[in-house]
Amino acid sequence: MKRYTEMTREELVSLQQQLTREFESTKAKGLSLDMSRGKPGADQLDISMGMMQVLADGAELKCETGVDCRNYGVIDGIPEAKRLLGAMSEVDPDHIIIYGNSSLNVMFDSIARSMTHGVMGNTPWCKLDKVKFLCPVPGYDRHFKITEFFGIEMINVPMSPEGPDMDMVEKLVSEDDSIKGIWCVPKYSNPQGYTYSKETVERFARLRPAAPDFRIYWDNAYSIHHLYDENQDFLVEILGECVKAGNPDIVYKFTSTSKVSFPGSGIAAVAASKANLEDFRKYMTIQTIGHDKLNQLRHVKFFKDLDGLHTHMRKHADLIRPKFEMVLETLEKELGGLGIGEWTKPHGGYFISFESMEGCAKAIVSKAKEAGVVMTGAGATYPYGKDPKDSNIRIAPTYPTIGELEQAAKIFVLCVKLISVEKLLAE
Amino acid sequence: MKRYTEMTREELVSLQQQLTREFESTKAKGLSLDMSRGKPGADQLDISMGMMQVLADGAELKCETGVDCRNYGVIDGIPEAKRLLGAMSEVDPDHIIIYGNSSLNVMFDSIARSMTHGVMGNTPWCKLDKVKFLCPVPGYDRHFKITEFFGIEMINVPMSPEGPDMDMVEKLVSEDDSIKGIWCVPKYSNPQGYTYSKETVERFARLRPAAPDFRIYWDNAYSIHHLYDENQDFLVEILGECVKAGNPDIVYKFTSTSKVSFPGSGIAAVAASKANLEDFRKYMTIQTIGHDKLNQLRHVKFFKDLDGLHTHMRKHADLIRPKFEMVLETLEKELGGLGIGEWTKPHGGYFISFESMEGCAKAIVSKAKEAGVVMTGAGATYPYGKDPKDSNIRIAPTYPTIGELEQAAKIFVLCVKLISVEKLLAE
Repeated sequence: MKRYTEMTREELVSLQQQLTREFESTKAKGLSLDMSRGKPGADQLDISMGMMQVLADGAELKCETGVDCRNYGVIDGIPEAKRLLGAMSEVDPDHIIIYGNSSLNVMFDSIARSMTHGVMGNTPWCKLDKVKFLCPVPGYDRHFKITEFFGIEMINVPMSPEGPDMDMVEKLVSEDDSIKGIWCVPKYSNPQGYTYSKETVERFARLRPAAPDFRIYWDNAYSIHHLYDENQDFLVEILGECVKAGNPDIVYKFTSTSKVSFPGSGIAAVAASKANLEDFRKYMTIQTIGHDKLNQLRHVKFFKDLDGLHTHMRKHADLIRPKFEMVLETLEKELGGLGIGEWTKPHGGYFISFESMEGCAKAIVSKAKEAGVVMTGAGATYPYGKDPKDSNIRIAPTYPTIGELEQAAKIFVLCVKLISVEKLLAE
Repeated sequence: MKRYTEMTREELVSLQQQLTREFESTKAKGLSLDMSRGKPGADQLDISMGMMQVLADGAELKCETGVDCRNYGVIDGIPEAKRLLGAMSEVDPDHIIIYGNSSLNVMFDSIARSMTHGVMGNTPWCKLDKVKFLCPVPGYDRHFKITEFFGIEMINVPMSPEGPDMDMVEKLVSEDDSIKGIWCVPKYSNPQGYTYSKETVERFARLRPAAPDFRIYWDNAYSIHHLYDENQDFLVEILGECVKAGNPDIVYKFTSTSKVSFPGSGIAAVAASKANLEDFRKYMTIQTIGHDKLNQLRHVKFFKDLDGLHTHMRKHADLIRPKFEMVLETLEKELGGLGIGEWTKPHGGYFISFESMEGCAKAIVSKAKEAGVVMTGAGATYPYGKDPKDSNIRIAPTYPTIGELEQAAKIFVLCVKLISVEKLLAE
């Protein structure tokens, strides 16, 4: 197939007519498909059903220190849960706090805490004229929504397959003490599926920010979420790097089992230096009577250890790999060589990131919706929902069945073609 | 027995010698007993063990609107959980949001939200010079710790068996717009076990605070926690009263199943006007991916409805009533008529409140500890831990076994006697 940019006006008009006919007949089917959110499919949830059984039938409900998990007590997690999520986070259990059902909630609370109480004795952010966060883009919409909600100014930092532009990060944080943090999804990033390189992690660990209360929000949401046994990405463990760099307090590392066990019924954790954890504990001691220890125990009894987690994640991979491959094949087959889009080919995580021609993303998403396919809103992967080039679209292939996904992917590429032709004709 | 205050100095000295001997021999036993926290006993937790089974073995895991409770979705609670906690709160399910495992957490978040974002469009509290809360005393230590943590100035309001001193409440809130809230445990109050009278609730509903963002924090923690089937207290439902009084937005009503099912693994709820709930939702939509719906489902399947809850609470009552009665009998038998203490006789809840002679509470608690009995710290029932008369002691009879409790109660009354004699001798 000829590159669209090399077509004559006549060829484009004829193509537009053909694509429009295809679109109208697709639209007439009245489909309703959803590729919008990083949700596991029902078959993925089924593989954790054993968890419903592990506390039944006379199971031991005391944790290993003898505390009855059914009662009050233990503010920061039972030891065996710290060990499990410590292993998952590649961090010593002493550097772990176990939280409730959502790591996003912990990130939100960390920002809220910094607003009202400050970070490790520094001025509360609500007393400052200006607070800013760096936002590698494209990135995770819910991160950006948190900082926006607290009136924190967000600065875009471009992503590459190596991670955020570290020249820019280093320069900005060393010059501006109102920059208090950066949002990172360092492994199988949302939405591109990139994993930060060794050099990127080392440069993060060696940052010398002007603000003493600058923190890296390291959301390691997909740490064990590989698609392939062989073709895995490796991420250097950042807490250890920060210690080596004499910067032990600069990072908060978040994780959860949301896409390991059940979204909304998993357990979350933070790994950080002891000084940071002390800051977290001061807050949580007032905030809560403690998190759900029975659910902690449920996870420990079901997964047992890191091997158990990896075995389980292979089952997830077996279910979602065909979905990723099918979407990637469709993109390649239908759009390869046309010069109207590029996309990432992740080895793990939950997303494929698509870059359309400039100024086309909103129109493509809107066109897909017209034909019954819901995508993540164009712009959502940027702070304030503003993609400056209007080109990024996040594809979330996990939730639909493979049959639905096949239809959705075909509609998506059709919309990409149609909108691209319209764009070229309008130029 | 003669009143201690009517004894001669010689009688007191001789009594002191006798009590000291008793104390020393008790202390020599090296006991370790805990009457400090409102924790259910292990036998109480056993009655909820059926909850471990209800989601096992092929149970339906979709809520009644068809959402798979194992996946993301549903931010403010599944309908059947809203109905269950709505019934428990005597409020229409439309006025309910279901939260996570701790209503204290929701109260904390409400204060945090008011600090950074303000209440329904009003100025965020962190932008104000001064924010104050009214604190009926004695009250719940963890409420006071939240307001202290946010630097909110606390003003004591005396409690009576009818509830807080409403003359004082009305005067203060109408005059001072820096007063933004009041902490209330309106039924079987912590620690006195008092239930606010009809008149008190009506006066709350009719308050005309100077601050438009004043809210009543109505922590109905013990709404169905009766000790007796017959001798129950009745509390007027406040949301309805507030609507009647043209004051629909003035109250947040909190509840949870912490002392119904499992502390730390229960579910919590807020009931409030739709305008208030909108304020809550705006925050939680950014804060979390949603609460644990499987645990909501677990509660619904186990309790079914309000009848199921009441039946269950009768089992709790059967287990803890003998403990309350034993402590009350010990107090009456050992201290009745001595003029050195008074105590409440609650019909529900988790506590008995003891008033010693002025200036004796700290010494009594410390003496009890010497003999191996841990009580709630004296002063804890007052803001900043400062009981102006140093006289209130909270007794929590539920956690120890009846045998342990019997020993603990005896030691407690012995300490009351001993410290009171010392006090009288020092005068």
